[in-house]
Amino acid sequence: MKASILIIGDEILIGQIADTNSGWIAQQLAAIGISLVNILTVADEHDAILSGLQLTTQTSDIVLMTGGLGPTKDDVTKVAIADFLGVDMYFDQSVFDRIASMFKKLNRELSPHHHNQCLMPESVSLIHNSMGTAPGMLFRKDEKYIISMPGVPFEMKAIMNEHVVPMLSNLSDQKIFHFTIKTACTGETIIENRITPIVAQLPEHIKVSYLPSIGAVKVRLTGSGTLSEHLEQEVMNFAQQMIDILGDIVFGFNETSIQESLQNLCIEKQIKVATAESCTGGNIAAKIVSVPGSSEYFKGSIIAYSNEIKINQLQVDQHIIEQHGVVSEETVIAMVNGVIDLLNVDVAVAVSGIAGPDGGTTEKPIGTIWLCVGTKEKKNTYLLHSGKHREKNIEAATIYGLDMLRRFVKEM
Amino acid sequence: MKASILIIGDEILIGQIADTNSGWIAQQLAAIGISLVNILTVADEHDAILSGLQLTTQTSDIVLMTGGLGPTKDDVTKVAIADFLGVDMYFDQSVFDRIASMFKKLNRELSPHHHNQCLMPESVSLIHNSMGTAPGMLFRKDEKYIISMPGVPFEMKAIMNEHVVPMLSNLSDQKIFHFTIKTACTGETIIENRITPIVAQLPEHIKVSYLPSIGAVKVRLTGSGTLSEHLEQEVMNFAQQMIDILGDIVFGFNETSIQESLQNLCIEKQIKVATAESCTGGNIAAKIVSVPGSSEYFKGSIIAYSNEIKINQLQVDQHIIEQHGVVSEETVIAMVNGVIDLLNVDVAVAVSGIAGPDGGTTEKPIGTIWLCVGTKEKKNTYLLHSGKHREKNIEAATIYGLDMLRRFVKEM
Repeated sequence: MKASILIIGDEILIGQIADTNSGWIAQQLAAIGISLVNILTVADEHDAILSGLQLTTQTSDIVLMTGGLGPTKDDVTKVAIADFLGVDMYFDQSVFDRIASMFKKLNRELSPHHHNQCLMPESVSLIHNSMGTAPGMLFRKDEKYIISMPGVPFEMKAIMNEHVVPMLSNLSDQKIFHFTIKTACTGETIIENRITPIVAQLPEHIKVSYLPSIGAVKVRLTGSGTLSEHLEQEVMNFAQQMIDILGDIVFGFNETSIQESLQNLCIEKQIKVATAESCTGGNIAAKIVSVPGSSEYFKGSIIAYSNEIKINQLQVDQHIIEQHGVVSEETVIAMVNGVIDLLNVDVAVAVSGIAGPDGGTTEKPIGTIWLCVGTKEKKNTYLLHSGKHREKNIEAATIYGLDMLRRFVKEM
Repeated sequence: MKASILIIGDEILIGQIADTNSGWIAQQLAAIGISLVNILTVADEHDAILSGLQLTTQTSDIVLMTGGLGPTKDDVTKVAIADFLGVDMYFDQSVFDRIASMFKKLNRELSPHHHNQCLMPESVSLIHNSMGTAPGMLFRKDEKYIISMPGVPFEMKAIMNEHVVPMLSNLSDQKIFHFTIKTACTGETIIENRITPIVAQLPEHIKVSYLPSIGAVKVRLTGSGTLSEHLEQEVMNFAQQMIDILGDIVFGFNETSIQESLQNLCIEKQIKVATAESCTGGNIAAKIVSVPGSSEYFKGSIIAYSNEIKINQLQVDQHIIEQHGVVSEETVIAMVNGVIDLLNVDVAVAVSGIAGPDGGTTEKPIGTIWLCVGTKEKKNTYLLHSGKHREKNIEAATIYGLDMLRRFVKEM
């Protein structure tokens, strides 16, 4: 089966926003063995959409459209689709009722635009959008599948994950099996060197790839074939050998995040956690709290961005700061002790660093970040040398802080 | 002048690498007033490239091709271009001499692939590539311009910056001017209704579009014309009328973020800020700290995820929580008072809500979020009804918290 992506987006064409949808969709299609032949971006205009549909249906069995839906602009897209299919528009009462009931709950008024949202090309099959008001739409023409989804990434992803991917998997005759091993705090080349003996044994139809991001590397195994059961076993056999060699730098598999692994460990061991953050400014806490159920183990944080808060709230001795500097091993150790006492937790992580772009010195350049994780009795510290870029430094410190916490709790 | 981008890239179609070239090219074209009508990605295959050229030359005066060049794969692309133009290939001695001399300097051997690199479609004008061996190529067909560049970003950017952009600037007779008004905490339809009288007056060559994201809406004006100076004035005149009508929901223009506007106001007015966060878990603080220089006004936060911290650190009276609930106006008011005293700041924001997926009740469903911003003397509160999705609820509460803070400080 061949597919195309048709993106409707003026804002992409003028370079105002980056298209991240098509890369994500490409990965989902690759995972279920559907080959993507075109990605086409067109303007939010009737004729552009119409010729986009003409091109993509010529080259593909499946066209995945994103964008051009929503209260203020979906007329154009839907009329273009109707014209392409040669059908009229109708008012869909079920869509209207759903929007009306959502707005009633939110105590908001419907506008004439919402009325337009309920106009649909005849022959549509509606696809439930669990994240917004504009439903996805499925059409058939000459054996082809045309699927239209909103461009808002989380709405599109919900529709893809919940409906489109399962449907397309059933259509595809080839099976691909991916397994991803997720590691943190270790460089790509070190990881590659460690698993070289296993990579050398991989058969032709199983590939390995390394996907590095800030502070983390994913090792992905991809097997392709037609007999899915045997393939899965074969891939998992090699994956297990890699996991054994990589050891405790592996924090999870596939979609698991560090904070999810951390949460599972802490809840299982009944450990209460807090953070004391300077340069990360609450970013570690925000990652922890992004996981549902985090209140079972996470109590809170002191964001001590100013030294005054480090001294007054976290009880960091002023002499430590004067003698060793606020970015020092001694300071982060004192921050951990302070936050454990103050917030009455078992384990805490503390971070203090120079995120940049200002504040670096010869001795402590931008990107110098001290981390400490521990209990009152036992602590691990780490000096991270990150780079010059503020956003990356904060992200790297966050990943290291979370993963040091995970490894510490694992050993408790 | 209209342009299209034609990307040749198997690795993009399988989701292995993200296409960043087209976003960059789109920005360059917008800056010189060339409107981009299509971005099309095709496979590294003769027929795919040929039909890509057919489509893009139909819709555009200029086709910018990237990818499909280089020692191992440029045969396919160049033969496809030659076939599209109806010309033969020839061996270009000047390209060969340049590659040979580069390799001599590097002490490396030429391979047969490099010989293929010197085969060119007749009628080519070569464009110097200061960053690599594969030159850019310019072709004319029926008044159209076809430009082919390597896909390696820094080679493509060098060719664009040094040759293609200057050339296209001269060709362009049209100017485009964009101006974006950024608003928060107000729905797309309300904004649209408010500025309808101004939109009704827009001339044909000035368009408006609405770009919603969680908690925020961008209103973008795009003017196109030939006299750039007059155009800019004309667009700004309408923009100013919209800004006046929209009032204090406008937090900035073009690339400005809420936290940048907030920072400018606080530093100017010498106001010190803290946050007291429950359901947002540090996300407001993290956004604040993402801006360089935030330490000049932001002192820190208490992340009071557990009630114990609300009571012990923020001095929220236990009776308030028992009587009104932890998600209540009374609680967030007490949190603001508590954090102002504790961290010794002028203004603070506090948030307490039910992010989900659990914890909702009939009276207070998931997505019920109370916010308070203020000084010890004066406070504003807001009850946000968000949705069912944890991530969206946290993001919406963060945007509302930041923007309430900005509006409060603006009035001080």
